Amino acid sequence: MSDLPKRIEIHEEGPREGFQIEAGPIATHDKIRFCEALAETGLHDVQCVSFVDARRVPGMADAVEVARGIRKRPNVLYTGIALNLRGYERAVQTPLHITGGIQMSTSNTFSIHNTNKDNAETLVEQRRQLNFFRESGIAVESAIVMTAFGCNFEGEVAPETVRDCVGKLLDLAEEYSIVLDRVRIADTVGWASPAAVQRVVGTIREKWPDLKLALHLHDTRGTGIANALMGMQMGISSFDSSCAGLGGCPFAGHKGAAGNICTEDLVFMAHEMGIETGIDLDALIECARMAEDIVGHPLPGKVMHGGSLSKFRPGAH
Amino acid sequence: MSDLPKRIEIHEEGPREGFQIEAGPIATHDKIRFCEALAETGLHDVQCVSFVDARRVPGMADAVEVARGIRKRPNVLYTGIALNLRGYERAVQTPLHITGGIQMSTSNTFSIHNTNKDNAETLVEQRRQLNFFRESGIAVESAIVMTAFGCNFEGEVAPETVRDCVGKLLDLAEEYSIVLDRVRIADTVGWASPAAVQRVVGTIREKWPDLKLALHLHDTRGTGIANALMGMQMGISSFDSSCAGLGGCPFAGHKGAAGNICTEDLVFMAHEMGIETGIDLDALIECARMAEDIVGHPLPGKVMHGGSLSKFRPGAH
Repeated sequence: MSDLPKRIEIHEEGPREGFQIEAGPIATHDKIRFCEALAETGLHDVQCVSFVDARRVPGMADAVEVARGIRKRPNVLYTGIALNLRGYERAVQTPLHITGGIQMSTSNTFSIHNTNKDNAETLVEQRRQLNFFRESGIAVESAIVMTAFGCNFEGEVAPETVRDCVGKLLDLAEEYSIVLDRVRIADTVGWASPAAVQRVVGTIREKWPDLKLALHLHDTRGTGIANALMGMQMGISSFDSSCAGLGGCPFAGHKGAAGNICTEDLVFMAHEMGIETGIDLDALIECARMAEDIVGHPLPGKVMHGGSLSKFRPGAH
Repeated sequence: MSDLPKRIEIHEEGPREGFQIEAGPIATHDKIRFCEALAETGLHDVQCVSFVDARRVPGMADAVEVARGIRKRPNVLYTGIALNLRGYERAVQTPLHITGGIQMSTSNTFSIHNTNKDNAETLVEQRRQLNFFRESGIAVESAIVMTAFGCNFEGEVAPETVRDCVGKLLDLAEEYSIVLDRVRIADTVGWASPAAVQRVVGTIREKWPDLKLALHLHDTRGTGIANALMGMQMGISSFDSSCAGLGGCPFAGHKGAAGNICTEDLVFMAHEMGIETGIDLDALIECARMAEDIVGHPLPGKVMHGGSLSKFRPGAH
């Protein structure tokens, strides 16, 4: 495990994931207090809302109110995402930290189902967005490869296909003189295993040894935290996750729609392995319990139910 | 990952774990059909019941009926456990495969809370049991070290303490001319992390490089499958687990009492890593769904909700 990072950074997506998928309605003030509590734990990056069509995602109808209502702490990025120009136009009207992103799916069929555009059309749309980002002064920080470990329409994805997608995104960034902060490798539909993480990350690394990679993992098939472990063993130090496992819950009528890996479970594992996160696990567990309280049903996180080990270790922090 | 085993063996504990902890009552014929279905999946070892005091564990009141009712397949061991002589005396009256075991906890305080005996008294009891096994012709196959990764009473457990417990159990076995099939290292109260698995297994291996070790892991804090991954990376090829994650469920009023790692999630990960189990994952998923149906509430297994990948891989098996 010589490649283990000394520290990992975690991008918290729980509020956005949860408020988006829960049948709700969840009160605006509950969304706000959850985002505020997360920012008290040591998390540096809290994704609060998405600026999407409220007719399609009713839980995000109050995205602007949430964004404006949060009392901000210094040194925390409160972010929001948008999927199209219309969304970005709303997003930049709020006090959230809005950055642009570029994306590509390994699967043409997935792209068509997800966005009604094939990969070629997606590239056209990406350029339109990149022009908008440039005109609006929105920084572009990251790229994401979706369905990097498999696709429910196209099946297995070869690591070389993921590598080629990364190459196309890097070319696109270069075309716009963008230096990407990182490239996210996303297990969008929950196909990853530790072996697949090793193969995909290894194949990308062979070509770009110094490219900073992040993992966006789902826990659809129970290996999410094990996949993250393999990511850490491969030296990955940036992860997306959701407090309490918000964003998909087999126990709430969303059978099969397991969400991101659970932030506090990831933090627990990291700390137990001597990997720093900068996060107060007990405070984060309190946030997870708050999330359960707000949504009104059990959430899949484990350490929030099992408890941390801090009370058993007198004197330890 | 050069130490990865080519094949792992799995000891299924779901029926015993589940029927023991569920508020129930679960019908005897449901217990029987669940055990029978598990034995159809390729599992070679199904722990069906425990012979314990029905006043303390009402769900096991029909243990003898379950044991006698199962229609057996060849090449499958249908096992049951007992915690004391009284239990063994009932167990050997049934057609189950009953073997003896020796055990020790790293924690004296845990022993007292768990069995009302300290470690010295436990040793006396072990000898009494070993004499009974010898007189009754019951083979002793395995030893188990409990609370090997931490204890809620005594806190951290040093790997050297676990190693010393293994030594005492090996000495005890030798005293009775028993050749142990394996030594189980148990995370009885859910403290393990991948780093702890690496430390503990490594420390035992240093002293006994050829001793066969098995891992008994719980998923109390969300790292169960990641701990199993680390076990596999350390060359461990024997695991205890529970179909559907039976045996503790934060969603059923057993908050914090997460059970063993989930068998089908473990099998999914193993297969995705090219590690054989001899188990038909889809058949096992059907068992997990049967378990959910029988207990009448959601169980924590993930791949049973997410589904296997077999339908997305035409031609693959």
